[in-house]
Amino acid sequence: MTETADPFVFPARAMIDAPGGDPFPHKHLLGIAGLKPEEIRFLLQTANSYVEHNRQALKHKPTLAGLTQINLFFENSTRTMMSFDIAGKRLGMDTVSMTGEASSVRKGETLLDTAQTLNAMRPDVLVVRHRQSGAVALLAQKVDGAVINAGDGWHEHPTQALLDALTILRHKGRIEGLEVAICGDVAHSRVARSNIYLLNALGAYPRLVAPPTLMPAHAERLGASVHTDMAEGLDGADVVMMLRLQRERMDGAFVPSEREYFTFYGLTEDKLALAKPDALVMHPGPMNRGVEIATAVADLPGRSVVEAQVEMGVAVRMACLDVLTRHARAAKGAGQ
Amino acid sequence: MTETADPFVFPARAMIDAPGGDPFPHKHLLGIAGLKPEEIRFLLQTANSYVEHNRQALKHKPTLAGLTQINLFFENSTRTMMSFDIAGKRLGMDTVSMTGEASSVRKGETLLDTAQTLNAMRPDVLVVRHRQSGAVALLAQKVDGAVINAGDGWHEHPTQALLDALTILRHKGRIEGLEVAICGDVAHSRVARSNIYLLNALGAYPRLVAPPTLMPAHAERLGASVHTDMAEGLDGADVVMMLRLQRERMDGAFVPSEREYFTFYGLTEDKLALAKPDALVMHPGPMNRGVEIATAVADLPGRSVVEAQVEMGVAVRMACLDVLTRHARAAKGAGQ
Amino acid sequence: MTETADPFVFPARAMIDAPGGDPFPHKHLLGIAGLKPEEIRFLLQTANSYVEHNRQALKHKPTLAGLTQINLFFENSTRTMMSFDIAGKRLGMDTVSMTGEASSVRKGETLLDTAQTLNAMRPDVLVVRHRQSGAVALLAQKVDGAVINAGDGWHEHPTQALLDALTILRHKGRIEGLEVAICGDVAHSRVARSNIYLLNALGAYPRLVAPPTLMPAHAERLGASVHTDMAEGLDGADVVMMLRLQRERMDGAFVPSEREYFTFYGLTEDKLALAKPDALVMHPGPMNRGVEIATAVADLPGRSVVEAQVEMGVAVRMACLDVLTRHARAAKGAGQ
Repeated sequence: MTETADPFVFPARAMIDAPGGDPFPHKHLLGIAGLKPEEIRFLLQTANSYVEHNRQALKHKPTLAGLTQINLFFENSTRTMMSFDIAGKRLGMDTVSMTGEASSVRKGETLLDTAQTLNAMRPDVLVVRHRQSGAVALLAQKVDGAVINAGDGWHEHPTQALLDALTILRHKGRIEGLEVAICGDVAHSRVARSNIYLLNALGAYPRLVAPPTLMPAHAERLGASVHTDMAEGLDGADVVMMLRLQRERMDGAFVPSEREYFTFYGLTEDKLALAKPDALVMHPGPMNRGVEIATAVADLPGRSVVEAQVEMGVAVRMACLDVLTRHARAAKGAGQ
Repeated sequence: MTETADPFVFPARAMIDAPGGDPFPHKHLLGIAGLKPEEIRFLLQTANSYVEHNRQALKHKPTLAGLTQINLFFENSTRTMMSFDIAGKRLGMDTVSMTGEASSVRKGETLLDTAQTLNAMRPDVLVVRHRQSGAVALLAQKVDGAVINAGDGWHEHPTQALLDALTILRHKGRIEGLEVAICGDVAHSRVARSNIYLLNALGAYPRLVAPPTLMPAHAERLGASVHTDMAEGLDGADVVMMLRLQRERMDGAFVPSEREYFTFYGLTEDKLALAKPDALVMHPGPMNRGVEIATAVADLPGRSVVEAQVEMGVAVRMACLDVLTRHARAAKGAGQ
Repeated sequence: MTETADPFVFPARAMIDAPGGDPFPHKHLLGIAGLKPEEIRFLLQTANSYVEHNRQALKHKPTLAGLTQINLFFENSTRTMMSFDIAGKRLGMDTVSMTGEASSVRKGETLLDTAQTLNAMRPDVLVVRHRQSGAVALLAQKVDGAVINAGDGWHEHPTQALLDALTILRHKGRIEGLEVAICGDVAHSRVARSNIYLLNALGAYPRLVAPPTLMPAHAERLGASVHTDMAEGLDGADVVMMLRLQRERMDGAFVPSEREYFTFYGLTEDKLALAKPDALVMHPGPMNRGVEIATAVADLPGRSVVEAQVEMGVAVRMACLDVLTRHARAAKGAGQ
């Protein structure tokens, strides 16, 4: 998919330059819910500036040199952790990682004790993933540094929504007014939830498409149209976001079989033909080919932007690390 | 707990400035036993200088830039390994880690072959944890760089004793003359052992408090008073150090039940009231709340210094890395 | 084993200085097969310059600062991964690692999807180990950065052959004309295969020594003499390379028993006496003492160069990282 030239026609500039204006007056990034549109745009604009940077051989920028980042992943996700780790290292941070299986949780330590222990090591940023919704917000109350939610339960995954938005922006030139179909296991998806918040904040129209067993209760209250039929949900869409079907959903209770799921909800070329002719195909990865997406669609030239999403992910995470440490750096006279 | 202002009234200064004096003439840090009081004080003094450093945003100090640190943990301990890793990175070292489960030991390699292999990669410092007492000392004989014992069996854990001492010093202004109760599973605790050596070296009075099944044989010969009754052991103490009860001790042979252990040996507010009114509460972590320590005591404002211990841990490890590489750096014309 | 003074009497110099000559015109390092003798010599010469560098305390060289290295090990090998990781860090690279067990492969992702995902994070070098022969070459077709094969199935392990060659060169002063016995599980050994290619390219005479069950089919076509008898295979050899016998070969199908294997194919002092009096003893590690090699031989002073091999490994990997990124660095105006 070719990128559109100069998609960043944001109104953010005026606000940033305003005297005394703080473009992102939050200590943590716990979710998209609660962020103002101009705050989201500011993060996207900052991230956009890192995209070109990352395409050079010389990818170091010592903006955050001397700061410490701890990645605390209670739930394994190598690719997300690597993305945050690379982002921190490219900005010069010292990064260390603690994964759930190795963590002291196994030894019976409480979440808050772990938080306080890590806090005492004086990290400037804690990147946290946890299987319980709300656990990251709880932890954020106990630490001095900035906390970035890297996914908590079925709640939020804000950097995923930001990287999805940056991908759309760079390929469509805008987000406002777009019809975005979010398809699959919406009920258990923090990716879906964060995207719904972001798309609404920036004036797009999210649509949820899922079998009844995978549609959240009261889905219509989330600020999206609700569809149990793919044909209806994809009709005229600008963007088709497929969600990963977790293995544990495939065994009976939620989905009759992989094959049946693919037949009704897998994204095939036939179904994609119902969307706009230039509709983007997105997936947060890792993909289950032949389950939620056909191989032909996953690799469709000019339409699939799955790799671009990963690339935008590093840039978005660099932006979050940069923005969330600005106050601390200014106060303590460090860096930049 | 507020820190006392200027607790470092060490006699170490004179000795350091003495012509030709080497304040720490050891190649490795294998234990506290065998260190002279002024050597311990020198490490504490060096560590103390890193505490303020770590409270800044800009925590890098390129003193050890270009040196290589290998963390070799045959026994998992994420928090200790992170502490050493952060310490090395803040001083500019390249750090790499090898954990027991991933190590070649699984492939039938001997400890000494692993040591020689790692040695050939030319690390300047090897940080080693091993479940067998004495294994770290054995390994130290086979390598060129400095070895730091990060805990070997029931033997020693010298950086833990140093961080405990630094915590006490910063909160009490002194160590000499203090009554320090070390309570719990003393028999299987390298933390207890290293602390006993250090407290004796610096003129404090350690007391061991444990049920008979968890008291080491010939405990009285270790240089501590011996108590099987908590009331007696805590009476008038300046510091109460609780030890972690390992899960594998809870199932019968050593302790009748968690609940009974807590009743007799868990630190509650009632029991703590027997110590001095300003007695510090310490724990090496991770804590088993409701087993060896009540939640109310673990979090008691102005008394619990559990988080401070973790913070001191990073500073102590930076000091050890710094001090142990001084000769090599001087000889090879590197750094500083 | 003492090293020979100035063993690098390469004809490579003239070629490097030739106008317009590119001493290593390959994007990836997938194997030794296909490399020209002067290309192999160029890598060895570059590696040799890093050996002294690594013996200093100050081991940093920011030649590759700002570049990103991803270690992608689908098959665990802590020592090889550490060697690559240390190599990258000493050159200033940001390194991140993903191991097979933690990788998304477990989640059903295909190899190529993983490759494309990592590629989107813009690594300059991908170091890949995979249990399937050819998997690394397949992956290399899908990424923008340089790929180094860190071992694929029974196919190739080029950096091992290079480090073996550098070890021989520094101890023997030459490779050409040497008789090199490669002994043990040749059939399943990528180490053997890469060494056979390299030794032939540089004019040495490889000999394969293995029981019939562990000799590859059509061994004679590989460019080596074939021996099922150790006495015959070792007779007059300049170098004896022992191969590791994997645990899974010891249980019946390939080898009657460890003890019998040791009796017939284990390298003992008696068997070594059949080789030249100054024959080198080599092993890629980790060693199974008492299985393929006797302890007395593994540690034989002046003969065993097992540790030197590990040391050369770091230097060889630094050379490969350096050489393979030269074009990208020149094109993008980065580093050096």
